[in-house]
Amino acid sequence: MTTEARETLPVPTAVPGVALFPAEFERVVTRLRADIEKMAEAEDFTVLTAPQVLPRDVVERSGYVREFPNLLGSVHNYGGDATAWLSRRAEAVPGGMWHDDQKIADVVLTPAACYHTYPLLAGTTVTAPARFAVEACCYRHEASTEPGRLRSFRMRELVYVGTEDACVEFRDRWQQTVADWLTGLGLDVAVEAANDPFFGPGAKLLSVNQRAQELKFELVAPVADGLRQAVASANCHKDHFGETFGIELPDGSPAHSTCVAFGLERIALAVVHANRDGGPEDESYA
Amino acid sequence: MTTEARETLPVPTAVPGVALFPAEFERVVTRLRADIEKMAEAEDFTVLTAPQVLPRDVVERSGYVREFPNLLGSVHNYGGDATAWLSRRAEAVPGGMWHDDQKIADVVLTPAACYHTYPLLAGTTVTAPARFAVEACCYRHEASTEPGRLRSFRMRELVYVGTEDACVEFRDRWQQTVADWLTGLGLDVAVEAANDPFFGPGAKLLSVNQRAQELKFELVAPVADGLRQAVASANCHKDHFGETFGIELPDGSPAHSTCVAFGLERIALAVVHANRDGGPEDESYA
Repeated sequence: MTTEARETLPVPTAVPGVALFPAEFERVVTRLRADIEKMAEAEDFTVLTAPQVLPRDVVERSGYVREFPNLLGSVHNYGGDATAWLSRRAEAVPGGMWHDDQKIADVVLTPAACYHTYPLLAGTTVTAPARFAVEACCYRHEASTEPGRLRSFRMRELVYVGTEDACVEFRDRWQQTVADWLTGLGLDVAVEAANDPFFGPGAKLLSVNQRAQELKFELVAPVADGLRQAVASANCHKDHFGETFGIELPDGSPAHSTCVAFGLERIALAVVHANRDGGPEDESYA
Repeated sequence: MTTEARETLPVPTAVPGVALFPAEFERVVTRLRADIEKMAEAEDFTVLTAPQVLPRDVVERSGYVREFPNLLGSVHNYGGDATAWLSRRAEAVPGGMWHDDQKIADVVLTPAACYHTYPLLAGTTVTAPARFAVEACCYRHEASTEPGRLRSFRMRELVYVGTEDACVEFRDRWQQTVADWLTGLGLDVAVEAANDPFFGPGAKLLSVNQRAQELKFELVAPVADGLRQAVASANCHKDHFGETFGIELPDGSPAHSTCVAFGLERIALAVVHANRDGGPEDESYA
Protein backbone atom coordinates (compact mmCIF):
# COMPACT_ATOMS: atom_id res chain seq x y z
CA MET A 1 0.00 0.00 0.00
CA THR A 2 2.54 2.57 1.09
CA THR A 3 4.32 2.25 -2.24
CA GLU A 4 1.09 2.70 -4.19
CA ALA A 5 0.03 5.67 -2.07
CA ARG A 6 3.33 7.38 -2.81
CA GLU A 7 2.82 7.05 -6.53
CA THR A 8 0.65 9.06 -8.85
CA LEU A 9 -2.32 6.80 -9.54
CA PRO A 10 -5.50 6.58 -7.44
CA VAL A 11 -5.38 4.01 -4.61
CA PRO A 12 -8.37 1.65 -4.88
CA THR A 13 -10.68 0.85 -1.95
CA ALA A 14 -12.60 -2.40 -1.47
CA VAL A 15 -15.49 -1.13 -3.61
CA PRO A 16 -15.40 -0.30 -7.34
CA GLY A 17 -15.20 3.34 -8.43
CA VAL A 18 -14.16 4.70 -5.02
CA ALA A 19 -10.49 5.61 -4.59
CA LEU A 20 -8.08 7.64 -2.48
CA PHE A 21 -5.77 10.09 -4.18
CA PRO A 22 -2.07 10.36 -3.31
CA ALA A 23 -0.15 13.61 -3.04
CA GLU A 24 1.34 13.41 -6.54
CA PHE A 25 -2.11 13.01 -8.09
CA GLU A 26 -3.39 15.93 -6.00
CA ARG A 27 -0.56 18.10 -7.29
CA VAL A 28 -1.90 17.55 -10.81
CA VAL A 29 -5.45 18.37 -9.64
CA THR A 30 -4.19 21.55 -7.96
CA ARG A 31 -2.50 22.65 -11.18
CA LEU A 32 -5.68 21.98 -13.16
CA ARG A 33 -7.67 24.15 -10.73
CA ALA A 34 -5.13 26.94 -11.08
CA ASP A 35 -5.35 26.72 -14.88
CA ILE A 36 -9.15 26.87 -14.77
CA GLU A 37 -9.00 29.86 -12.44
CA LYS A 38 -6.62 31.61 -14.82
CA MET A 39 -8.81 30.92 -17.85
CA ALA A 40 -11.79 32.33 -15.93
CA GLU A 41 -10.11 35.42 -14.50
CA ALA A 42 -11.37 37.78 -17.21
CA GLU A 43 -14.98 37.10 -16.16
CA ASP A 44 -16.52 37.90 -12.81
CA PHE A 45 -17.31 34.49 -11.29
CA THR A 46 -18.53 34.05 -7.73
CA VAL A 47 -16.28 31.27 -6.45
CA LEU A 48 -17.88 28.65 -4.18
CA THR A 49 -16.91 25.32 -2.68
CA ALA A 50 -20.07 23.23 -2.44
CA PRO A 51 -20.75 20.36 -0.03
CA GLN A 52 -20.95 16.67 -0.99
CA VAL A 53 -24.65 16.62 -0.10
CA LEU A 54 -27.47 18.63 -1.65
CA PRO A 55 -30.99 19.33 -0.34
CA ARG A 56 -33.13 16.45 -1.67
CA ASP A 57 -35.78 18.88 -2.84
CA VAL A 58 -33.37 20.17 -5.51
CA VAL A 59 -33.08 16.82 -7.32
CA GLU A 60 -36.81 16.21 -6.95
CA ARG A 61 -37.81 19.58 -8.38
CA SER A 62 -35.22 19.70 -11.15
CA GLY A 63 -36.02 16.28 -12.63
CA TYR A 64 -32.73 14.58 -11.76
CA VAL A 65 -34.52 11.84 -9.82
CA ARG A 66 -36.92 11.31 -12.69
CA GLU A 67 -34.20 10.95 -15.33
CA PHE A 68 -31.33 9.32 -13.40
CA PRO A 69 -32.77 7.28 -10.51
CA ASN A 70 -30.07 4.65 -11.06
CA LEU A 71 -27.21 7.15 -10.67
CA LEU A 72 -28.59 9.06 -7.69
CA GLY A 73 -27.26 8.23 -4.23
CA SER A 74 -29.71 9.24 -1.52
CA VAL A 75 -28.78 9.56 2.16
CA HIS A 76 -30.62 7.56 4.79
CA ASN A 77 -30.21 7.44 8.54
CA TYR A 78 -31.58 5.85 11.68
CA GLY A 79 -34.46 7.86 13.04
CA GLY A 80 -35.20 5.88 16.18
CA ASP A 81 -34.13 6.66 19.75
CA ALA A 82 -31.39 5.19 21.94
CA THR A 83 -33.67 2.70 23.69
CA ALA A 84 -34.99 1.33 20.41
CA TRP A 85 -31.45 1.01 19.08
CA LEU A 86 -30.38 -1.12 22.06
CA SER A 87 -32.54 -3.94 20.75
CA ARG A 88 -30.87 -3.66 17.32
CA ARG A 89 -27.23 -3.13 18.26
CA ALA A 90 -26.29 -6.77 17.79
CA GLU A 91 -27.33 -6.50 14.12
CA ALA A 92 -24.76 -3.76 13.50
CA VAL A 93 -22.23 -6.11 11.91
CA PRO A 94 -21.33 -7.02 8.31
CA GLY A 95 -24.32 -8.75 6.77
CA GLY A 96 -26.57 -7.60 9.63
CA MET A 97 -29.96 -6.02 8.95
CA TRP A 98 -29.32 -2.96 11.19
CA HIS A 99 -30.41 -0.73 8.30
CA ASP A 100 -33.81 -2.13 7.38
CA ASP A 101 -35.74 0.63 9.17
CA GLN A 102 -33.63 3.58 8.03
CA LYS A 103 -35.42 6.68 6.78
CA ILE A 104 -34.54 8.86 3.84
CA ALA A 105 -32.88 12.13 4.90
CA ASP A 106 -33.39 15.67 3.59
CA VAL A 107 -30.18 15.47 1.53
CA VAL A 108 -28.84 13.38 -1.36
CA LEU A 109 -25.29 13.00 -2.59
CA THR A 110 -24.45 15.89 -4.91
CA PRO A 111 -24.70 14.54 -8.49
CA ALA A 112 -23.16 17.66 -10.12
CA ALA A 113 -21.68 20.81 -8.61
CA CYS A 114 -23.94 23.23 -10.49
CA TYR A 115 -27.09 21.99 -8.69
CA HIS A 116 -25.90 23.97 -5.68
CA THR A 117 -26.02 27.28 -7.55
CA TYR A 118 -29.56 27.58 -8.96
CA PRO A 119 -31.27 27.63 -5.54
CA LEU A 120 -29.07 30.64 -4.65
CA LEU A 121 -30.90 32.59 -7.36
CA ALA A 122 -34.38 31.19 -6.67
CA GLY A 123 -37.14 33.77 -6.87
CA THR A 124 -34.85 36.51 -8.18
CA THR A 125 -34.65 38.53 -11.37
CA VAL A 126 -31.20 38.42 -12.96
CA THR A 127 -30.69 41.98 -14.16
CA ALA A 128 -27.07 41.14 -15.01
CA PRO A 129 -25.75 37.68 -15.90
CA ALA A 130 -24.93 35.49 -12.86
CA ARG A 131 -21.67 33.53 -13.01
CA PHE A 132 -20.46 30.90 -10.56
CA ALA A 133 -17.25 28.89 -10.38
CA VAL A 134 -18.24 26.01 -8.13
CA GLU A 135 -16.55 22.77 -7.08
CA ALA A 136 -18.01 19.78 -5.25
CA CYS A 137 -17.26 16.17 -4.41
CA CYS A 138 -19.89 14.38 -6.48
CA TYR A 139 -21.32 10.86 -6.47
CA ARG A 140 -22.95 8.78 -9.17
CA HIS A 141 -23.82 5.17 -8.65
CA GLU A 142 -22.03 3.91 -11.78
CA ALA A 143 -21.98 0.13 -12.08
CA SER A 144 -18.57 -0.18 -13.69
CA THR A 145 -14.93 -0.77 -12.82
CA GLU A 146 -13.49 1.13 -15.81
CA PRO A 147 -10.57 3.38 -14.89
CA GLY A 148 -11.92 6.93 -14.67
CA ARG A 149 -15.51 5.72 -14.20
CA LEU A 150 -15.40 6.86 -10.57
CA ARG A 151 -18.50 6.92 -8.42
CA SER A 152 -16.87 9.47 -6.15
CA PHE A 153 -15.20 12.34 -8.01
CA ARG A 154 -14.62 16.09 -7.98
CA MET A 155 -16.31 18.30 -10.49
CA ARG A 156 -15.55 21.97 -11.06
CA GLU A 157 -18.10 23.93 -13.04
CA LEU A 158 -18.45 27.35 -14.58
CA VAL A 159 -22.13 28.26 -14.49
CA TYR A 160 -23.78 31.12 -16.40
CA VAL A 161 -27.36 32.30 -15.97
CA GLY A 162 -28.78 34.91 -18.35
CA THR A 163 -30.45 35.19 -21.75
CA GLU A 164 -30.61 32.33 -24.25
CA ASP A 165 -28.25 33.99 -26.73
CA ALA A 166 -25.71 34.82 -24.04
CA CYS A 167 -25.83 31.22 -22.77
CA VAL A 168 -25.15 29.79 -26.24
CA GLU A 169 -22.29 32.27 -26.71
CA PHE A 170 -20.84 31.32 -23.30
CA ARG A 171 -21.14 27.59 -24.02
CA ASP A 172 -19.56 27.82 -27.50
CA ARG A 173 -16.73 30.09 -26.36
CA TRP A 174 -15.85 27.96 -23.33
CA GLN A 175 -16.09 24.73 -25.28
CA GLN A 176 -13.38 26.07 -27.58
CA THR A 177 -11.30 27.46 -24.71
CA VAL A 178 -11.37 24.14 -22.86
CA ALA A 179 -10.63 22.11 -26.00
CA ASP A 180 -7.59 24.32 -26.68
CA TRP A 181 -6.43 24.03 -23.07
CA LEU A 182 -6.72 20.22 -23.04
CA THR A 183 -4.89 20.02 -26.36
CA GLY A 184 -2.16 22.18 -24.86
CA LEU A 185 -1.86 19.69 -22.01
CA GLY A 186 -0.96 17.04 -24.55
CA LEU A 187 -4.36 15.35 -24.77
CA ASP A 188 -5.85 13.97 -27.97
CA VAL A 189 -9.22 15.69 -27.58
CA ALA A 190 -12.39 15.30 -29.63
CA VAL A 191 -15.60 17.30 -29.25
CA GLU A 192 -18.65 15.05 -29.44
CA ALA A 193 -22.35 15.87 -29.32
CA ALA A 194 -23.67 14.07 -26.27
CA ASN A 195 -26.84 12.89 -24.69
CA ASP A 196 -27.37 11.67 -21.17
CA PRO A 197 -29.10 8.40 -21.94
CA PHE A 198 -31.91 7.58 -19.59
CA PHE A 199 -30.81 4.60 -17.48
CA GLY A 200 -27.41 4.26 -19.05
CA PRO A 201 -26.05 3.16 -22.40
CA GLY A 202 -27.97 0.38 -24.08
CA ALA A 203 -31.30 1.31 -22.55
CA LYS A 204 -34.17 1.64 -25.01
CA LEU A 205 -35.47 4.87 -23.55
CA LEU A 206 -33.06 7.39 -25.00
CA SER A 207 -35.84 9.55 -26.35
CA VAL A 208 -36.87 10.68 -22.85
CA ASN A 209 -33.99 13.12 -22.71
CA GLN A 210 -33.46 13.43 -26.42
CA ARG A 211 -33.53 17.19 -26.57
CA ALA A 212 -30.19 17.13 -24.78
CA GLN A 213 -28.64 15.97 -28.04
CA GLU A 214 -28.18 19.39 -29.58
CA LEU A 215 -27.45 21.06 -26.24
CA LYS A 216 -24.59 19.11 -24.69
CA PHE A 217 -21.08 18.58 -25.98
CA GLU A 218 -18.46 16.41 -24.39
CA LEU A 219 -14.71 16.76 -24.64
CA VAL A 220 -13.41 13.23 -24.93
CA ALA A 221 -9.81 12.15 -24.34
CA PRO A 222 -7.85 8.96 -23.56
CA VAL A 223 -7.65 8.32 -19.78
CA ALA A 224 -6.07 4.83 -20.04
CA ASP A 225 -4.88 2.46 -22.75
CA GLY A 226 -7.67 2.03 -25.28
CA LEU A 227 -10.16 3.98 -23.18
CA ARG A 228 -11.55 7.39 -24.13
CA GLN A 229 -13.87 9.18 -21.73
CA ALA A 230 -15.57 12.56 -21.44
CA VAL A 231 -13.20 14.66 -19.33
CA ALA A 232 -15.21 17.88 -19.64
CA SER A 233 -18.57 18.96 -21.02
CA ALA A 234 -20.40 22.09 -22.11
CA ASN A 235 -24.10 22.03 -21.63
CA CYS A 236 -27.03 24.39 -22.32
CA HIS A 237 -30.08 23.77 -20.12
CA LYS A 238 -32.36 26.21 -21.96
CA ASP A 239 -34.79 27.67 -19.38
CA HIS A 240 -35.12 24.44 -17.38
CA PHE A 241 -33.51 25.68 -14.16
CA GLY A 242 -34.91 29.20 -14.59
CA GLU A 243 -38.39 27.73 -14.72
CA THR A 244 -37.81 25.22 -11.91
CA PHE A 245 -36.38 27.77 -9.48
CA GLY A 246 -38.29 30.88 -10.51
CA ILE A 247 -35.26 32.73 -11.85
CA GLU A 248 -36.45 35.47 -14.22
CA LEU A 249 -35.03 37.77 -16.82
CA PRO A 250 -36.03 41.46 -16.64
CA ASP A 251 -38.79 40.82 -19.24
CA GLY A 252 -40.41 38.29 -16.86
CA SER A 253 -39.45 35.19 -18.87
CA PRO A 254 -37.50 32.38 -17.18
CA ALA A 255 -33.72 32.77 -17.33
CA HIS A 256 -31.60 30.36 -19.37
CA SER A 257 -28.52 28.66 -17.99
CA THR A 258 -25.44 26.83 -19.19
CA CYS A 259 -22.44 25.22 -17.55
CA VAL A 260 -19.01 24.00 -18.44
CA ALA A 261 -18.00 21.02 -16.30
CA PHE A 262 -14.47 19.80 -15.59
CA GLY A 263 -14.05 16.24 -14.32
CA LEU A 264 -10.91 16.86 -12.29
CA GLU A 265 -9.92 13.22 -11.72
CA ARG A 266 -10.53 12.30 -15.36
CA ILE A 267 -8.50 15.22 -16.68
CA ALA A 268 -5.74 14.36 -14.20
CA LEU A 269 -5.80 10.71 -15.28
CA ALA A 270 -5.66 11.79 -18.92
CA VAL A 271 -2.70 14.09 -18.22
CA VAL A 272 -0.84 11.37 -16.32
CA HIS A 273 -1.65 8.87 -19.09
CA ALA A 274 -0.49 11.20 -21.87
CA ASN A 275 2.81 11.80 -20.10
CA ARG A 276 3.37 8.10 -19.38
CA ASP A 277 2.80 7.26 -23.00
CA GLY A 278 5.66 9.43 -24.06
CA GLY A 279 3.21 11.99 -25.39
CA PRO A 280 4.04 15.71 -25.35
CA GLU A 281 5.75 16.30 -22.01
CA ASP A 282 4.64 19.05 -19.69
CA GLU A 283 7.19 19.45 -16.92
CA SER A 284 4.75 21.35 -14.75
CA TYR A 285 2.25 18.49 -14.63
CA ALA A 286 3.89 15.11 -14.45
CA MET B 1 -26.96 35.94 -2.32
CA THR B 2 -24.15 37.36 -4.40
CA THR B 3 -23.23 39.70 -1.58
CA GLU B 4 -23.20 36.87 0.97
CA ALA B 5 -21.21 34.61 -1.33
CA ARG B 6 -18.56 37.30 -1.72
CA GLU B 7 -18.09 37.57 2.01
CA THR B 8 -16.25 35.29 4.39
CA LEU B 9 -18.96 33.33 6.13
CA PRO B 10 -20.52 30.07 4.92
CA VAL B 11 -23.57 30.47 2.67
CA PRO B 12 -26.50 28.43 4.05
CA THR B 13 -28.56 26.01 1.96
CA ALA B 14 -32.21 25.14 2.54
CA VAL B 15 -31.27 22.41 5.05
CA PRO B 16 -29.57 22.92 8.44
CA GLY B 17 -25.87 22.18 8.78
CA VAL B 18 -25.14 22.12 5.04
CA ALA B 19 -23.43 25.18 3.59
CA LEU B 20 -21.40 26.45 0.64
CA PHE B 21 -18.08 28.15 1.26
CA PRO B 22 -17.08 31.38 -0.48
CA ALA B 23 -13.59 32.12 -1.79
CA GLU B 24 -12.55 34.20 1.24
CA PHE B 25 -13.46 31.37 3.61
CA GLU B 26 -11.56 28.91 1.42
CA ARG B 27 -8.49 31.11 1.56
CA VAL B 28 -8.51 30.65 5.35
CA VAL B 29 -8.95 26.88 4.94
CA THR B 30 -6.05 26.76 2.46
CA ARG B 31 -3.81 28.58 4.94
CA LEU B 32 -4.80 26.18 7.71
CA ARG B 33 -3.88 23.22 5.48
CA ALA B 34 -0.51 24.78 4.72
CA ASP B 35 0.14 25.31 8.45
CA ILE B 36 -0.76 21.69 9.23
CA GLU B 37 1.52 20.50 6.43
CA LYS B 38 4.35 22.62 7.81
CA MET B 39 3.85 21.32 11.36
CA ALA B 40 3.92 17.75 10.00
CA GLU B 41 6.92 18.11 7.68
CA ALA B 42 9.44 16.69 10.17
CA GLU B 43 7.60 13.35 10.13
CA ASP B 44 7.14 11.06 7.16
CA PHE B 45 3.37 11.11 6.51
CA THR B 46 1.79 9.47 3.47
CA VAL B 47 -0.52 12.20 2.21
CA LEU B 48 -3.92 11.11 0.89
CA THR B 49 -7.15 12.77 -0.18
CA ALA B 50 -9.99 10.41 0.71
CA PRO B 51 -13.42 10.24 -0.91
CA GLN B 52 -16.69 11.35 0.70
CA VAL B 53 -17.93 7.76 0.74
CA LEU B 54 -16.42 4.78 2.54
CA PRO B 55 -17.01 1.05 2.01
CA ARG B 56 -19.94 0.16 4.29
CA ASP B 57 -18.09 -2.84 5.62
CA VAL B 58 -15.60 -0.52 7.37
CA VAL B 59 -18.22 1.10 9.62
CA GLU B 60 -19.87 -2.25 10.26
CA ARG B 61 -16.64 -3.97 11.29
CA SER B 62 -15.20 -1.10 13.30
CA GLY B 63 -18.24 -0.53 15.52
CA TYR B 64 -19.17 2.91 14.19
CA VAL B 65 -22.66 1.73 13.24
CA ARG B 66 -23.12 0.16 16.67
CA GLU B 67 -22.11 3.31 18.59
CA PHE B 68 -23.34 6.13 16.35
CA PRO B 69 -26.31 4.91 14.28
CA ASN B 70 -27.92 8.32 14.66
CA LEU B 71 -24.92 10.15 13.13
CA LEU B 72 -24.21 7.76 10.28
CA GLY B 73 -25.47 8.64 6.80
CA SER B 74 -25.82 5.56 4.62
CA VAL B 75 -26.15 5.67 0.84
CA HIS B 76 -29.14 4.11 -0.90
CA ASN B 77 -30.04 3.86 -4.54
CA TYR B 78 -32.64 2.52 -6.94
CA GLY B 79 -31.84 -1.04 -7.90
CA GLY B 80 -34.65 -1.68 -10.37
CA ASP B 81 -34.48 -1.54 -14.17
CA ALA B 82 -35.64 1.09 -16.63
CA THR B 83 -38.97 -0.59 -17.34
CA ALA B 84 -39.83 -0.83 -13.66
CA TRP B 85 -38.90 2.82 -13.18
CA LEU B 86 -41.30 3.94 -15.91
CA SER B 87 -44.20 3.03 -13.63
CA ARG B 88 -42.68 5.10 -10.81
CA ARG B 89 -41.47 8.18 -12.68
CA ALA B 90 -44.51 10.27 -11.80
CA GLU B 91 -43.66 9.87 -8.10
CA ALA B 92 -40.27 11.54 -8.60
CA VAL B 93 -41.43 14.91 -7.29
CA PRO B 94 -41.15 16.68 -3.91
CA GLY B 95 -43.18 14.68 -1.41
CA GLY B 96 -43.41 11.70 -3.79
CA MET B 97 -42.62 8.18 -2.61
CA TRP B 98 -40.18 7.42 -5.43
CA HIS B 99 -37.67 6.24 -2.83
CA ASP B 100 -39.64 3.65 -0.88
CA ASP B 101 -38.01 0.68 -2.61
CA GLN B 102 -34.43 1.94 -2.56
CA LYS B 103 -31.70 -0.46 -1.50
CA ILE B 104 -28.73 0.23 0.73
CA ALA B 105 -25.49 0.57 -1.26
CA ASP B 106 -22.01 -0.77 -0.51
CA VAL B 107 -20.85 2.65 0.73
CA VAL B 108 -21.75 5.07 3.54
CA LEU B 109 -20.88 8.72 3.92
CA THR B 110 -17.40 9.03 5.42
CA PRO B 111 -17.87 9.86 9.14
CA ALA B 112 -14.17 10.62 9.77
CA ALA B 113 -11.20 10.76 7.41
CA CYS B 114 -9.07 8.23 9.32
CA TYR B 115 -11.50 5.35 8.58
CA HIS B 116 -10.05 5.32 5.08
CA THR B 117 -6.54 4.53 6.30
CA TYR B 118 -6.85 1.38 8.45
CA PRO B 119 -8.09 -0.85 5.58
CA LEU B 120 -4.92 0.12 3.66
CA LEU B 121 -2.91 -1.70 6.34
CA ALA B 122 -5.32 -4.63 6.77
CA GLY B 123 -3.58 -7.97 7.19
CA THR B 124 -0.11 -6.47 7.39
CA THR B 125 2.60 -6.33 10.03
CA VAL B 126 3.78 -2.79 10.73
CA THR B 127 7.52 -3.20 11.14
CA ALA B 128 7.92 0.59 11.22
CA PRO B 129 5.22 3.05 12.37
CA ALA B 130 2.68 3.95 9.66
CA ARG B 131 1.75 7.63 9.37
CA PHE B 132 -0.98 9.13 7.20
CA ALA B 133 -2.06 12.73 6.62
CA VAL B 134 -5.54 12.28 5.21
CA GLU B 135 -8.37 14.68 4.38
CA ALA B 136 -11.99 13.90 3.51
CA CYS B 137 -15.37 15.56 3.16
CA CYS B 138 -17.24 14.03 6.10
CA TYR B 139 -20.91 13.77 7.05
CA ARG B 140 -22.63 13.37 10.39
CA HIS B 141 -26.38 13.57 10.75
CA GLU B 142 -26.33 16.21 13.53
CA ALA B 143 -29.78 17.48 14.44
CA SER B 144 -28.80 21.06 15.23
CA THR B 145 -28.59 24.47 13.62
CA GLU B 146 -25.72 25.78 15.80
CA PRO B 147 -23.05 27.63 13.82
CA GLY B 148 -20.15 25.23 13.34
CA ARG B 149 -22.36 22.16 13.94
CA LEU B 150 -22.12 21.28 10.26
CA ARG B 151 -23.38 17.99 8.94
CA SER B 152 -21.12 18.32 5.93
CA PHE B 153 -17.55 19.31 6.79
CA ARG B 154 -13.91 18.70 5.94
CA MET B 155 -11.67 16.87 8.34
CA ARG B 156 -7.92 16.57 8.07
CA GLU B 157 -6.27 13.92 10.24
CA LEU B 158 -2.80 12.82 11.18
CA VAL B 159 -2.94 9.08 11.82
CA TYR B 160 -0.26 7.01 13.53
CA VAL B 161 -0.20 3.21 13.76
CA GLY B 162 2.42 1.52 15.95
CA THR B 163 3.07 0.47 19.53
CA GLU B 164 0.95 1.63 22.46
CA ASP B 165 3.72 3.77 23.96
CA ALA B 166 4.52 5.42 20.65
CA CYS B 167 0.82 6.18 20.10
CA VAL B 168 0.50 7.88 23.49
CA GLU B 169 3.66 9.87 22.82
CA PHE B 170 2.35 10.91 19.38
CA ARG B 171 -1.04 11.92 20.80
CA ASP B 172 0.42 13.95 23.69
CA ARG B 173 3.02 15.68 21.54
CA TRP B 174 0.55 16.62 18.80
CA GLN B 175 -2.07 17.74 21.31
CA GLN B 176 0.45 20.28 22.60
CA THR B 177 1.61 21.29 19.11
CA VAL B 178 -1.95 21.90 17.95
CA ALA B 179 -2.90 23.80 21.14
CA ASP B 180 0.13 26.08 20.67
CA TRP B 181 -0.71 26.61 17.00
CA LEU B 182 -4.35 27.49 17.70
CA THR B 183 -3.28 29.87 20.48
CA GLY B 184 -0.88 31.49 18.02
CA LEU B 185 -3.82 32.02 15.65
CA GLY B 186 -5.46 34.15 18.33
CA LEU B 187 -7.87 31.52 19.64
CA ASP B 188 -8.78 31.12 23.31
CA VAL B 189 -8.17 27.36 23.44
CA ALA B 190 -8.86 24.89 26.24
CA VAL B 191 -7.94 21.20 26.29
CA GLU B 192 -10.80 19.06 27.58
CA ALA B 193 -11.05 15.35 28.22
CA ALA B 194 -13.81 14.13 25.94
CA ASN B 195 -16.13 11.26 25.44
CA ASP B 196 -18.24 10.48 22.44
CA PRO B 197 -21.55 9.98 24.16
CA PHE B 198 -23.61 7.18 22.69
CA PHE B 199 -26.60 8.75 20.94
CA GLY B 200 -25.67 12.32 21.76
CA PRO B 201 -25.55 14.50 24.86
CA GLY B 202 -28.29 13.85 27.37
CA ALA B 203 -28.66 10.18 26.53
CA LYS B 204 -28.52 7.82 29.48
CA LEU B 205 -26.15 5.40 27.82
CA LEU B 206 -22.85 7.17 28.20
CA SER B 207 -21.22 4.17 29.81
CA VAL B 208 -21.26 2.20 26.56
CA ASN B 209 -18.26 4.12 25.31
CA GLN B 210 -16.93 5.21 28.66
CA ARG B 211 -13.41 4.00 28.14
CA ALA B 212 -13.01 6.79 25.61
CA GLN B 213 -12.91 9.20 28.52
CA GLU B 214 -9.23 8.87 29.28
CA LEU B 215 -8.28 8.43 25.62
CA LYS B 216 -9.70 11.42 23.80
CA PHE B 217 -8.96 15.10 24.26
CA GLU B 218 -10.68 17.93 22.50
CA LEU B 219 -9.31 21.38 21.77
CA VAL B 220 -12.20 23.75 22.37
CA ALA B 221 -12.39 27.35 21.13
CA PRO B 222 -15.05 30.02 20.47
CA VAL B 223 -16.51 29.72 16.94
CA ALA B 224 -19.28 32.31 17.42
CA ASP B 225 -20.53 34.66 20.14
CA GLY B 226 -21.08 32.63 23.32
CA LEU B 227 -20.40 29.33 21.54
CA ARG B 228 -17.36 27.15 22.19
CA GLN B 229 -16.86 23.99 20.14
CA ALA B 230 -14.23 21.31 19.67
CA VAL B 231 -12.14 22.50 16.71
CA ALA B 232 -9.59 19.68 16.93
CA SER B 233 -9.12 16.45 18.85
CA ALA B 234 -6.43 13.96 19.79
CA ASN B 235 -7.59 10.43 20.20
CA CYS B 236 -5.99 7.09 21.16
CA HIS B 237 -7.89 4.04 19.89
CA LYS B 238 -5.78 1.48 21.77
CA ASP B 239 -5.68 -1.69 19.63
CA HIS B 240 -9.25 -1.36 18.37
CA PHE B 241 -8.43 -0.81 14.70
CA GLY B 242 -5.43 -3.12 14.83
CA GLU B 243 -7.68 -5.92 16.02
CA THR B 244 -10.53 -5.09 13.64
CA PHE B 245 -8.37 -4.97 10.53
CA GLY B 246 -5.71 -7.53 11.45
CA ILE B 247 -2.87 -5.04 11.65
CA GLU B 248 -0.05 -6.55 13.72
CA LEU B 249 3.09 -5.48 15.45
CA PRO B 250 6.22 -7.58 14.86
CA ASP B 251 5.52 -9.51 18.12
CA GLY B 252 2.18 -10.65 16.68
CA SER B 253 0.01 -8.46 18.92
CA PRO B 254 -2.51 -6.07 17.35
CA ALA B 255 -1.11 -2.63 16.51
CA HIS B 256 -2.32 0.46 18.36
CA SER B 257 -3.44 3.62 16.62
CA THR B 258 -4.05 7.27 17.34
CA CYS B 259 -5.15 10.27 15.36
CA VAL B 260 -5.17 14.02 15.59
CA ALA B 261 -8.19 15.50 13.84
CA PHE B 262 -8.57 19.05 12.52
CA GLY B 263 -12.10 20.32 11.85
CA LEU B 264 -11.18 22.69 9.04
CA GLU B 265 -14.45 24.64 8.91
CA ARG B 266 -14.60 25.02 12.69
CA ILE B 267 -11.01 26.25 12.95
CA ALA B 268 -11.68 28.66 10.07
CA LEU B 269 -14.86 29.91 11.77
CA ALA B 270 -12.94 30.36 15.02
CA VAL B 271 -10.18 32.30 13.25
CA VAL B 272 -12.69 34.53 11.46
CA HIS B 273 -14.56 35.04 14.74
CA ALA B 274 -11.41 35.89 16.71
CA ASN B 275 -10.42 38.48 14.13
CA ARG B 276 -13.91 40.03 13.96
CA ASP B 277 -13.97 40.39 17.72
CA GLY B 278 -10.91 42.59 17.65
CA GLY B 279 -8.79 39.72 18.95
CA PRO B 280 -5.14 39.34 18.01
CA GLU B 281 -4.97 40.15 14.32
CA ASP B 282 -3.26 37.83 11.90
CA GLU B 283 -2.89 39.60 8.58
CA SER B 284 -2.31 36.36 6.73
CA TYR B 285 -5.64 34.89 7.80
CA ALA B 286 -8.43 37.41 7.92
